[in-house]
Amino acid sequence: MRVFRLALIGFGNVGQGFAQILHEQGPELARQFGVEFKIVAISDNIKGSIYNPDGFAPADLLETVKAPRSLETLPAMNCGWDAEQTILNCNADAMIQLTYTDLKTGEPAVSHIRLALQRGMHAITTNKGPIALYYADLSELAKQNGVQIGMEGTVMSGTPTLRLATELLGAAGISKVQGILNGTTNLILSRMSSGISYDDALAEAKKEGFAEADPSGDVDGHDAAGKTVILANVLMNSPIRMDDVDRQGIRHITMEDIDNARTQGKRWKLIATVEKTDNGVKASVRPTPLSVDHPLASVNGATNAITFSTKLLGEVTMIGPGAGKMQTGYAILGDLLAIIRDECNENSF
Amino acid sequence: MRVFRLALIGFGNVGQGFAQILHEQGPELARQFGVEFKIVAISDNIKGSIYNPDGFAPADLLETVKAPRSLETLPAMNCGWDAEQTILNCNADAMIQLTYTDLKTGEPAVSHIRLALQRGMHAITTNKGPIALYYADLSELAKQNGVQIGMEGTVMSGTPTLRLATELLGAAGISKVQGILNGTTNLILSRMSSGISYDDALAEAKKEGFAEADPSGDVDGHDAAGKTVILANVLMNSPIRMDDVDRQGIRHITMEDIDNARTQGKRWKLIATVEKTDNGVKASVRPTPLSVDHPLASVNGATNAITFSTKLLGEVTMIGPGAGKMQTGYAILGDLLAIIRDECNENSF
Repeated sequence: MRVFRLALIGFGNVGQGFAQILHEQGPELARQFGVEFKIVAISDNIKGSIYNPDGFAPADLLETVKAPRSLETLPAMNCGWDAEQTILNCNADAMIQLTYTDLKTGEPAVSHIRLALQRGMHAITTNKGPIALYYADLSELAKQNGVQIGMEGTVMSGTPTLRLATELLGAAGISKVQGILNGTTNLILSRMSSGISYDDALAEAKKEGFAEADPSGDVDGHDAAGKTVILANVLMNSPIRMDDVDRQGIRHITMEDIDNARTQGKRWKLIATVEKTDNGVKASVRPTPLSVDHPLASVNGATNAITFSTKLLGEVTMIGPGAGKMQTGYAILGDLLAIIRDECNENSF
Repeated sequence: MRVFRLALIGFGNVGQGFAQILHEQGPELARQFGVEFKIVAISDNIKGSIYNPDGFAPADLLETVKAPRSLETLPAMNCGWDAEQTILNCNADAMIQLTYTDLKTGEPAVSHIRLALQRGMHAITTNKGPIALYYADLSELAKQNGVQIGMEGTVMSGTPTLRLATELLGAAGISKVQGILNGTTNLILSRMSSGISYDDALAEAKKEGFAEADPSGDVDGHDAAGKTVILANVLMNSPIRMDDVDRQGIRHITMEDIDNARTQGKRWKLIATVEKTDNGVKASVRPTPLSVDHPLASVNGATNAITFSTKLLGEVTMIGPGAGKMQTGYAILGDLLAIIRDECNENSF
């Protein structure tokens, strides 16, 4: 049985979702993939920082934060290391970066990822910041150090968007990608379609935890733009930046717009697009009235979806969750399983 | 550059689509995957049988059958071998079985696949017969001989349905699969929704080449049932047979049914379902009125779609082509690239 040691930087919702998966699925993963994932370190500014080379039982971790008690009450060899100390000293096979998203600087995630890669550790993140801002640099650094970066969770949470595109459609010739990549705005637009005003729909979304107190990251299209930049970089090898995305949010959409679209057999969706052009790519995020027959038009609520236009297959669309604790936790698991498969692969050359 | 030698048994539409892909994409595949695919043998009862260890240029093959001339007019080392002789003597890395589908016996494909596997050759097929009838046997035989069977093209042509499920959702816990797996019946039902009678819609589909002279394989649900059996076997490890599928076709659907569904906000679709139960799986193919908000309800025309219900991600839906020369040719390419990746993988243990 291969043992694969993990260090988690940040232990919020996603980290806990991932721990829950390990708790529930550990024996099944061992049976199916021959691997035991062991969390040997966690560093979290609020919940505490712990290290134990023998690993922590996921159930103990979850119970401790639920109590709530500091993680440092668990039997550990070391406590209180910050993120850098953890990465430098934990001797993990992979560092999983799960701190907050900053689409302006990518920090602190990008520094943690650099440090891990330089230490010869694989790095996995579900945080858009470092990937949207520094994908090319980080990929090169990973390559130099013979390790990988996993980023499936940065787009459509655990719905395996990036791997579908790179692994299964990699030879089909993707020329264009169009998607509903932000669940909050899709939920608001879906509710507006059933007659609720923008303000009321936003208030509801806030109440239910789908929108933040300051909703601008979602409703002005920044979140979708970050994902658009990731798609351009990862799938089209095009080093565009946040400013290159022609971005428009949904604040100005009125009930009149919604009604007008309905009478034309259309529905408003916030559509992210990346398209190959003769000189690079063209990227945009903008509210778009789609014909009800369009595969993205019937994607409602907080669900996400993406359509790949390919040379050999025509259009392939995937619809799935765009957020959620377990769903994003699954993205981490998917990245880990791919890393392990590819490690075997590389060893053979 | 890895050279990977191929023998094609059958050179109809799908074989020609695959040759077209190699012709157009050969240099790109070499660049991207470091492999050169070389067709060293073809055996086709009508178009002729040829063998040349140096390989045939895909463009020459396509031009010859288009002329039309016998393939045996091309410079070959041997001509006229039947399928068995070809498999025994061609020394290929993979045999690609592309003869006609027989859902009762699986022949002649299943015999060819057995022979190839026994010779230590990988086998790829886009033919439902052998996989629906003998999946467990053939998998075991492949395993014994240290080779693989590729079957992506048996469900939804080149849309990477089986690999999405096994590789990317393999750890998510698939408990149920529902799909629109037959394009012909979906086309007929879509046209009936726009006011055309069953008989007229069927006549149109025949005229356009979507339905065969004897349409029973499609309209009575046999084709969809074959795919359902494949999904149960491949994704749920459940050795059900054609007779285990509770099958109902679309012949009895009337315009009144269509209209009644519309007034209830529903659309008729021929839905294939496989669901895990306490003692195995339950499988069915039957016309079902779906709410227009269901992700499969807006899949129209000859397009196919599948929804995976999973423990960790909830529902993930993929929509894509279900047929087509290039599309099914892409399934073969996908299988080949996966075999090559996994060969590297296995060599490392």
